[in-house]
Amino acid sequence: MSTSTNPQVGIIMGSDSDLPIMQAAADILTEFGIAYELTVVSAHRTPLRMVSYAQTARERGLKIIIAGAGGAAHLPGMVASITSLPVIGVPIKSSNSIDGWDSVLSILQMPNGIPVATVALNAAKNAGILAATMIGAFDSAIGNKVTAYKQQLESEVLVKVEKLKQNGNPNKYDL
Amino acid sequence: MSTSTNPQVGIIMGSDSDLPIMQAAADILTEFGIAYELTVVSAHRTPLRMVSYAQTARERGLKIIIAGAGGAAHLPGMVASITSLPVIGVPIKSSNSIDGWDSVLSILQMPNGIPVATVALNAAKNAGILAATMIGAFDSAIGNKVTAYKQQLESEVLVKVEKLKQNGNPNKYDL
Amino acid sequence: MSTSTNPQVGIIMGSDSDLPIMQAAADILTEFGIAYELTVVSAHRTPLRMVSYAQTARERGLKIIIAGAGGAAHLPGMVASITSLPVIGVPIKSSNSIDGWDSVLSILQMPNGIPVATVALNAAKNAGILAATMIGAFDSAIGNKVTAYKQQLESEVLVKVEKLKQNGNPNKYDL
Amino acid sequence: MSTSTNPQVGIIMGSDSDLPIMQAAADILTEFGIAYELTVVSAHRTPLRMVSYAQTARERGLKIIIAGAGGAAHLPGMVASITSLPVIGVPIKSSNSIDGWDSVLSILQMPNGIPVATVALNAAKNAGILAATMIGAFDSAIGNKVTAYKQQLESEVLVKVEKLKQNGNPNKYDL
Amino acid sequence: MSTSTNPQVGIIMGSDSDLPIMQAAADILTEFGIAYELTVVSAHRTPLRMVSYAQTARERGLKIIIAGAGGAAHLPGMVASITSLPVIGVPIKSSNSIDGWDSVLSILQMPNGIPVATVALNAAKNAGILAATMIGAFDSAIGNKVTAYKQQLESEVLVKVEKLKQNGNPNKYDL
Amino acid sequence: MSTSTNPQVGIIMGSDSDLPIMQAAADILTEFGIAYELTVVSAHRTPLRMVSYAQTARERGLKIIIAGAGGAAHLPGMVASITSLPVIGVPIKSSNSIDGWDSVLSILQMPNGIPVATVALNAAKNAGILAATMIGAFDSAIGNKVTAYKQQLESEVLVKVEKLKQNGNPNKYDL
Amino acid sequence: MSTSTNPQVGIIMGSDSDLPIMQAAADILTEFGIAYELTVVSAHRTPLRMVSYAQTARERGLKIIIAGAGGAAHLPGMVASITSLPVIGVPIKSSNSIDGWDSVLSILQMPNGIPVATVALNAAKNAGILAATMIGAFDSAIGNKVTAYKQQLESEVLVKVEKLKQNGNPNKYDL
Amino acid sequence: MSTSTNPQVGIIMGSDSDLPIMQAAADILTEFGIAYELTVVSAHRTPLRMVSYAQTARERGLKIIIAGAGGAAHLPGMVASITSLPVIGVPIKSSNSIDGWDSVLSILQMPNGIPVATVALNAAKNAGILAATMIGAFDSAIGNKVTAYKQQLESEVLVKVEKLKQNGNPNKYDL
Repeated sequence: MSTSTNPQVGIIMGSDSDLPIMQAAADILTEFGIAYELTVVSAHRTPLRMVSYAQTARERGLKIIIAGAGGAAHLPGMVASITSLPVIGVPIKSSNSIDGWDSVLSILQMPNGIPVATVALNAAKNAGILAATMIGAFDSAIGNKVTAYKQQLESEVLVKVEKLKQNGNPNKYDL
Repeated sequence: MSTSTNPQVGIIMGSDSDLPIMQAAADILTEFGIAYELTVVSAHRTPLRMVSYAQTARERGLKIIIAGAGGAAHLPGMVASITSLPVIGVPIKSSNSIDGWDSVLSILQMPNGIPVATVALNAAKNAGILAATMIGAFDSAIGNKVTAYKQQLESEVLVKVEKLKQNGNPNKYDL
Repeated sequence: MSTSTNPQVGIIMGSDSDLPIMQAAADILTEFGIAYELTVVSAHRTPLRMVSYAQTARERGLKIIIAGAGGAAHLPGMVASITSLPVIGVPIKSSNSIDGWDSVLSILQMPNGIPVATVALNAAKNAGILAATMIGAFDSAIGNKVTAYKQQLESEVLVKVEKLKQNGNPNKYDL
Repeated sequence: MSTSTNPQVGIIMGSDSDLPIMQAAADILTEFGIAYELTVVSAHRTPLRMVSYAQTARERGLKIIIAGAGGAAHLPGMVASITSLPVIGVPIKSSNSIDGWDSVLSILQMPNGIPVATVALNAAKNAGILAATMIGAFDSAIGNKVTAYKQQLESEVLVKVEKLKQNGNPNKYDL
Repeated sequence: MSTSTNPQVGIIMGSDSDLPIMQAAADILTEFGIAYELTVVSAHRTPLRMVSYAQTARERGLKIIIAGAGGAAHLPGMVASITSLPVIGVPIKSSNSIDGWDSVLSILQMPNGIPVATVALNAAKNAGILAATMIGAFDSAIGNKVTAYKQQLESEVLVKVEKLKQNGNPNKYDL
Repeated sequence: MSTSTNPQVGIIMGSDSDLPIMQAAADILTEFGIAYELTVVSAHRTPLRMVSYAQTARERGLKIIIAGAGGAAHLPGMVASITSLPVIGVPIKSSNSIDGWDSVLSILQMPNGIPVATVALNAAKNAGILAATMIGAFDSAIGNKVTAYKQQLESEVLVKVEKLKQNGNPNKYDL
Repeated sequence: MSTSTNPQVGIIMGSDSDLPIMQAAADILTEFGIAYELTVVSAHRTPLRMVSYAQTARERGLKIIIAGAGGAAHLPGMVASITSLPVIGVPIKSSNSIDGWDSVLSILQMPNGIPVATVALNAAKNAGILAATMIGAFDSAIGNKVTAYKQQLESEVLVKVEKLKQNGNPNKYDL
Repeated sequence: MSTSTNPQVGIIMGSDSDLPIMQAAADILTEFGIAYELTVVSAHRTPLRMVSYAQTARERGLKIIIAGAGGAAHLPGMVASITSLPVIGVPIKSSNSIDGWDSVLSILQMPNGIPVATVALNAAKNAGILAATMIGAFDSAIGNKVTAYKQQLESEVLVKVEKLKQNGNPNKYDL
C-alpha cells in the first residue's frame, strides 16, 4: 500500500520484537487495499509518545488503531483511554508470558467506559480483518472485498474437501 | 431511541435470561442516539434463525452486530462467520459457567479469517460504547459524542477526588 | 473400510490441518469394521455447508457424528444444534490455542438441550472407540468387538508386566 | 417411567448428595419415555459394588450408563474401564471442588482406549438428552422424539422473541 | 496522620469504589506514623491526570507510590513507567473480575525495565507494610517500628496458642 | 483423647482462624483412638517457634505432623524441611485466596528432597485418616480400625441405596 | 535392593511409559535400603488386577503403595479406596495432559474418607522419600537415614555456596 | 561492583541452578553501581542458614533482599517473615513447575503482615531495577541513575522507530 494515501489504520506495538506477529495485520490490510501506518509505541518505555500518538490519531485521519502487546499488556487499553477511535487489541504471547493469560486478560478485561476490541492470542491477521469489517460497514467497496474474502475462505475449504476425497478418504457427502 | 429510525446496531443474545446483562448495551446506545434493534437469536436452539439473521444483516442496513452469549458461547463467532459486518462479542458469566472462562475463550479464540471483537466478561455497556466508537470513526456527530462521553468520565472522577478530600483524606496533589 | 458400505459414522473437522489428529478416529473405526465418511466441514469458513451436512446426516443414514475442532471450537456444538444424532466432540490443541483450554471449554460447556459428548484433548482415537460403544450397545457384533478390544488392552498390559520383571524389576505380586 | 419396563439407561452417582443435580437426567429420560434405573454407586466407598455394577450392566440389558461425580471424580472412568457400554460422565461441582476444574478434568481426560462421553459441569439434563440421541440413532421412535424436542426448544425461543417485542424492544428483524 | 507533614507515600486508586480495600494501606501507614496522601487517579478515565501525578511525584517529595486497581489493571504499571520512584501494586478483585486473575496478571507481569512491586490480591495492608519496610531500610526509627510490628504479630499468635490450650486442646509443646 | 497419652500426631495451623477447618483432623484422630496435640504455629509470624517445633518433633515422640495453611502456604513445606517425620499438608481456602490454587500449589509443588503429603483443599479430615493409615501400616490395632472405617463408609452408602429405592427411584440392580 | 527381602513398598504405575518418571522412586528407596516391588497396574486397562493388587497389598506385607498416573489419573485414588495402607500419588505430566492440571487434580481432590498423599508433578523421587519418612517414623534405622539424607542436602548446598564464591560472586555472608 | 564496598542488596536463590536467571539482577545492580552480595540460601535444604541469613541481614548493612525461587517457592516469604527489610521475590519457572503458577502464587499470596514485593515470572532484572528505585528514593545519585535508565529505554525505542521507517514501513506519525 502506497504511503502517499492517508493511512486509515494505525498499527502500533510495544516493541519491534512484536513485528513478526504484527506484520500479519499490515499484510492483510494491504490485501484489502487499506492504507495503514506502522510504528513502535511503548506504553511503558515511551508513555508520553503513547499519549501523543493517541491524542493526535483522530485529527491525523486515522479511523482505527490496532495495538499489539504482551505480558502486562497496557498499550491497547491506554490508547483506548485517550482516543475516541475504536482500538483493536492483539494479545501477544511473549517470552516469560504465563501461557498468554497475562496478555489476554490485561487487554480484554477493560473497565466500563473504555472498551478494547480484543482478538485471539497472536491473531494480528484477524485484527486487520476486523478493521476491514469496520471500514467495510461504511465503505461498500471495502465491504464487498470483505464479503469476497469470506467467500474465498469457503472456496479454499472446498478445494481441501476435494483433495481429501482424491486421497482416498471415504466421503458420501457431496455438496 | 425511536424504532422508526433504521437501526444501525443489532443486539442479539442467546436467551432472554441474558437480557439483564445485555440491556446495558441498548441503554448506552440510546444515550449516544444510535438506533438499534434487540432480539433473541440462539445459535444452538434456533440455528437457522441465526443464519438468516446474519445473512440479512447487511442488506437490512445494520452496521454492527453485538452478540452476547455464555458457556460454550458460539453465537458471536457463528454470526461473524456469515456476515461481513463487524461483530462485537459479549462473554456472559452464566450459571454453571466455569468462572466465565468458557464464555471468554469460546468467543475470543476465533480462527484466522473470522474475528470477533471481544469485550470483557459481562461488559455489554462496553460493547455499546465500542459500537459507538466504530460509528463515530465515520460519523463525526457520533464521534464528538464519544469524545464528550470520555470527558464526562474524567469529570466524574474529579468530582470523586474532591469528595474524598472533603471527607478528610489527606491529598497534597491538586490538579 | 470400503466406502460401498453405507457409512455409520461421519468424521468431520474444521480444517485439513486437523487430519493428523483426526485420522486416529478413522483408523480405529476401520479396526472395528465400522464404515465411516471423512471430510472437512468448517463452522466458520463454510457455515452453510455445515448446516446442510448436519441437516442431512440422519437421512443419509449416519448414526453418529465425530467432529474435531480447535480454539473457539464451534463445529461440534453447532452440528449438535441441528441434528438429532449424537455428536462426539474432539477438542484439538491447535497452534495459538491457550494450552487447549479454549478447545475443551468451547466444546464441553454446551447449554441445556444441546449436549456434545466430549472426549479428551486430541483424543480422536477415543472418539472412534466411543462411537463403537454406542453402536455396540445396539449391535451385538460390534459390542463383542468392543469387549474384545478392552480384553486386548488388558493383555497388552500383562505383557508389559512380564517384560518389566524380566528386566530385573523386583515384583512379588503375581497375578 | 414404570420400572416394570427393563431399564435402558443406568443413572449412578457417587453420593446421594449428588441427587439434586442428577435428578435432571432421570426427569428428561422420563419425558422421552426411556426407562432407567437410578442408584448410588461410589467408586471410592463401594469399589466392589462399582465393579459388579459395571460388569453386569450389559447383561442386565442396559444400553447406556450415566455417571455423575465430583472432585477427583473416578466413577465414570472406572465404570467405562469395565463395561463395553457407552458411559456418559457428568462432572459435579461439589463443595470444596476447585471451581469444578477437578471434576471436569478427572472425567474428561481419559487415556486412549477408555473414553467417557463428558458433558458440561452439572449438566445432568444434557446427559439424559445425550442418552436419548444415542438410543434415537437406532430407535426411530425415540429419534423422532429428540427431533421434536429440538423443535420445541426453537419454539420456546420464538415465543420469547415475540414477548421481547411486546415489551417494547425495538426489532426490525421479523422471521 | 496530619497532612501538614509532607507525605512520603502516595496512595492512589482507579475508583473510589476501591476505597474500602485501599483504606487498609492508609490505616497501617498511620499506625507506623508515616505521612501519606490519598486520592483517585484513573489510568483509563483520567490518563493525563495519571501522567501528571506520576511526573510530579518525586519532586513533590513522595518516596513511594501505592497504586490499587482491578480488572485490566493498568494504573500501577503506567505510573511505574513514568516515575523513577518504587511503585507498589495492589491487585483488587473487582466485580466482573475473572476471579482476580486479571488484576494480578496485569499488575505483576510487567516487561523488563519497568517493575511493579506486586502484593497479594486485595492486600492493601501489606502494601502499606511494604512501604514501611522500604522507608525503614533507610530510616532507623521506622525500621524499629517495623521490627516491633513483627514482634507484635508473634505475640498475638502466642496469645492464641495459650487460648487454644485453655479451651482444652491437647498440646504437649510448650515454647 | 486424653492428653496424658503421649501424642503421636501433631496438628498445627498458621492461625486460629483455621481451627474450624483443622478441627476435623483432631476429631477423626479421636475416633481412631490416636493421641494428638494441637496448636498454632505460624511460618510467617512465628518463624522461630516453627523451627523449634519441627526440630523437637521427633524427640518429643511425634510420628506424624499435620500442618494446615492457606494462601502462600509455607508451614507444611518449611516444617518438612526441618524434621525427618512425614508431614501431611492441608491446603486451606482462606479469604482472598485465589480460589484455593495458591494454597494447593504452595504446599504440593515441593522441590526434590522435601516432600509434603498433600491432601485435597480443606480436607483436614482426610489428613487425619491419612495419618491413621500411616500408623496403621505399623500398628495392626490401628490398621484394623482403618479397615473397619472403610467398611463403615461402604455400609453408609448401602443404606442410602436402600433409602433411594424406598423413595421410589427405579433400581433393577440389587447387590 | 535384593528382592529376597520382603518388599515394604509397592511401586505401581498405569503404563510402562511412566517408568522413566517412576524409576526415581525405586532408586531413592534403594538408596535408603528399603525393599520394594515395582510393576504395571492400570486402573483403566486392568481394573480387576488393580482391585486384586490393592486387596492383597496388606496381607502380602506391603506397608506403603506409591502409585503414579497421568491425565484422568484414577490409579492412586482407586487403590486407596480398597486398601487400608497409605497410598502416595505421583501426578505424571503425560502427553496430551492439559499442562499437568488433570493429573494433579484427579489425584489430589479425593473425597472425605479416602485420602491420597499427593506429591508434586512428576515427583517420584519425593514419593520415595515420603515413603522413607513414613517407615522412618516407626523404624529408627530408616529414620536416621532420612535425617542423614536431609543433612546431605544441606551439605550439597554449602558446597555450591563455596563454589559460587570461588567463581567471584561477591558474598559477605559467611556461615 | 567491587565487594570491598559494603553490599546494599543481598541476592539469594534456592539453588545454583537458578543462577542463569538471577544473574540478571546482579548485572543490572552493577550497571547502577549498587554493591551487592550473591549466594545460595535454600529455604528447604538449609532452613537454619536461611533463618540466620535473614536475622543478620539488617545488622550486616543490607538494605534490600532479592530472593528467587521456583515451584513451592518459600524462600522470599520466609526471609520476609524474619527480617524487617524489604524483600523482593522473583518467581522462577523451574522444571516440573506447573507453568510457573506455583512459583508466582507461593511468592505473591503472602498473608497480612508479611508482604513480599513480587515481580514477574523470571524477572530478575526487574528485581534489580526495583531495588534501585527503592534506594533511589532516598539516595538522589541512584535516583538520577534510575531516571536516566528510563530515558535510555525511551531512546532505544525511538531508534527502533527510525529503523522500522527506514525498512520501508509506512509511518505518517513523526514525534
